Amino acid sequence: MAPAQVIRNVRPWGQSAAVDLILAGGCIQAIKPTGETSALECLYDGQGQLLLPAFVEAHTHLDKTLWTLPWRGNSAGPTRNDRIANEHGVLNHLNSPMAERAGPLIEHCIAQGSLYFRSHVDAQTEWGLKHIEAMVAVRETYAHLVDMQLVAFPQGGLLNKPGVAELMRAALDMGVEVVGGIDPAGIDLDPIGHLRAIFDMAVTHECGIDIHLHDLGELGRWEIERIADLTHASGLQGKVMISHAYALGAFPSHELAPLADRLAALDISIMTCAPAHVSVPPVAMLRAHGVNVCSGSDSIRDAWSPMGNGDMLERAWLMAHRFGWSKDADLSMALDAVTTGGARALGIERYGLEPGCDANFVLLAAENLAEAVVSRSPRRTVISRGRLVAHDGLFLGP
Amino acid sequence: MAPAQVIRNVRPWGQSAAVDLILAGGCIQAIKPTGETSALECLYDGQGQLLLPAFVEAHTHLDKTLWTLPWRGNSAGPTRNDRIANEHGVLNHLNSPMAERAGPLIEHCIAQGSLYFRSHVDAQTEWGLKHIEAMVAVRETYAHLVDMQLVAFPQGGLLNKPGVAELMRAALDMGVEVVGGIDPAGIDLDPIGHLRAIFDMAVTHECGIDIHLHDLGELGRWEIERIADLTHASGLQGKVMISHAYALGAFPSHELAPLADRLAALDISIMTCAPAHVSVPPVAMLRAHGVNVCSGSDSIRDAWSPMGNGDMLERAWLMAHRFGWSKDADLSMALDAVTTGGARALGIERYGLEPGCDANFVLLAAENLAEAVVSRSPRRTVISRGRLVAHDGLFLGP
Repeated sequence: MAPAQVIRNVRPWGQSAAVDLILAGGCIQAIKPTGETSALECLYDGQGQLLLPAFVEAHTHLDKTLWTLPWRGNSAGPTRNDRIANEHGVLNHLNSPMAERAGPLIEHCIAQGSLYFRSHVDAQTEWGLKHIEAMVAVRETYAHLVDMQLVAFPQGGLLNKPGVAELMRAALDMGVEVVGGIDPAGIDLDPIGHLRAIFDMAVTHECGIDIHLHDLGELGRWEIERIADLTHASGLQGKVMISHAYALGAFPSHELAPLADRLAALDISIMTCAPAHVSVPPVAMLRAHGVNVCSGSDSIRDAWSPMGNGDMLERAWLMAHRFGWSKDADLSMALDAVTTGGARALGIERYGLEPGCDANFVLLAAENLAEAVVSRSPRRTVISRGRLVAHDGLFLGP
Repeated sequence: MAPAQVIRNVRPWGQSAAVDLILAGGCIQAIKPTGETSALECLYDGQGQLLLPAFVEAHTHLDKTLWTLPWRGNSAGPTRNDRIANEHGVLNHLNSPMAERAGPLIEHCIAQGSLYFRSHVDAQTEWGLKHIEAMVAVRETYAHLVDMQLVAFPQGGLLNKPGVAELMRAALDMGVEVVGGIDPAGIDLDPIGHLRAIFDMAVTHECGIDIHLHDLGELGRWEIERIADLTHASGLQGKVMISHAYALGAFPSHELAPLADRLAALDISIMTCAPAHVSVPPVAMLRAHGVNVCSGSDSIRDAWSPMGNGDMLERAWLMAHRFGWSKDADLSMALDAVTTGGARALGIERYGLEPGCDANFVLLAAENLAEAVVSRSPRRTVISRGRLVAHDGLFLGP
């Protein structure tokens, strides 16, 4: 094992007292007051910067990004099904392999401080296993730098597309970790059939579930109740995430409280990108009821939208913007969604800033957590498994 | 007059063909195909960058920023009146003169590309003329770099605060250009009295009006109708702006259409910061009816909110984010709000990229307008009145 190294003079979670972190074997071995570690080799002098565990990108679609390609005006029609069909056409006519788009995007995300990812991978029969194999290969390329979970995602539907279920099972056999789902009512038009299929698959493969739920209002809420039923019946407590869950934003708190309590009891996580043009899950209310909330970029320059950029600190800021937060405690809550909330949702072990945790960090100039969110300093330093991988906002190389 | 200079190889509004701009006397004298101006002194080689007219910050409060000060957690209570009282207390206990906060903030805004400002200045009797004089002095300090309009703003109310009207009149006599107003119903509790007072003041001083209108729903819409009545009766067509106008976001298009037509006919501009936690004016619908829309940062690190940063290109991106825009035409519409929409709202002459316009520009790396909004390149170059004032995102000095 390499000799211990030290990160000097950093302030974990923005605490006022600076400390030194002693690292060994890619983990935090000990934390000492600054100045007591002078005998050890210095990996990085933080000069009083704020130290956070690396950000968790809990929802994105690296497989379909158009990152690195020339600008492409969005050509989709207005409905969700139009967008699905449009994307299919766009991706079918690309000459750029997935590795040449997703790879540079992962490096860009690393430079901004994300070292944990959950990325959905389309399971579409037209592409067979090729698309999934390409994404598994991209993950392998960056496995020394980032932890990445993949979700077998039936973007175009599951029950209504013969062969998709088989493709998802094949993906799970290839090392994809999570069963995906999408709008059981709105896309497959058979909510109970869709949910039973994905819960059966998760039980059989002993894995978790992550369901895209855009269905709105009463319909979406009813589906969330059914997801809770099946989570309980399948014994999948702590392994289910509902992504987007716009419907939770359509009801007043007093009406939503029983469902929030149920989500908390079943440890079902809610992922929101905090979009501003639709209703969104009421993050503060859900957290007050004990529901775990995480966040993600979703689209990053893809055929759905050109708007994402993979910056999870900016995503925390967008969450604060979405709810009009300005208090320090609220800004910290937004930061929690892209750090510990994401780690809990993804079941990441050894996450945090305690001895024994993996040495995966972001350092940035800010007085405290609230200022970190507001200023979104782009000059970040990133350490992965005890190794400096980005400095001053720039990726240092694969 | 100084000899003509040239900005080489730039793409106005992102057009594909690069051109050279010949500048003389701080204005655009002519536009030529790139390469035909080699005899002239080169001010800046744009290397194919996108060229825009400088951004218009149409709504901010430079007088109350806490910019440059250590982080201060937001201490306001939940209501609008709580926030007003809290801010009063915060500003009363500052040791930092306005010039030391507003000055660096203006330099920061310049570096991001804003060279036109409309800034509201509190008229509060406790401060008398000192506060207004300080802001007029700050404007004078930067008069060689930026065009700034000031608004005499009755933050705490007008009719309900004896002496505020006199202070506003004194401000107008000192060179403040615009009469401000605030929630005629919600704060002064006398909508007709408040509106008559500010319209009378505007007519007497031959100036425009800019009204903060946070009042929501039916109440706010009713007030907008009354503002339209008085704009017509006072002959102030083209000189009235309604800032925020949240109420316009509370109604479906078919119901709002007659009012939109009326705003367009009276050339009343709507300013929205595109916040995400309240209803906002439906920008695309209003523009389709011919209503001029502009935008601003509003609070920039002040006692109301720590969230603003004065970046008007980011504000355009936030507008796109607010409405879920992803089409190139919509992204360009957002950019219009921070450029030509702002110029029309503020009545700025010689604005644009045609011969005869002032040489006030932002240059940035982007393929087209949509990408400029999405990427928000921070490495901008800014030219004020034919002089390089910021490069690579950094202000070059006063």
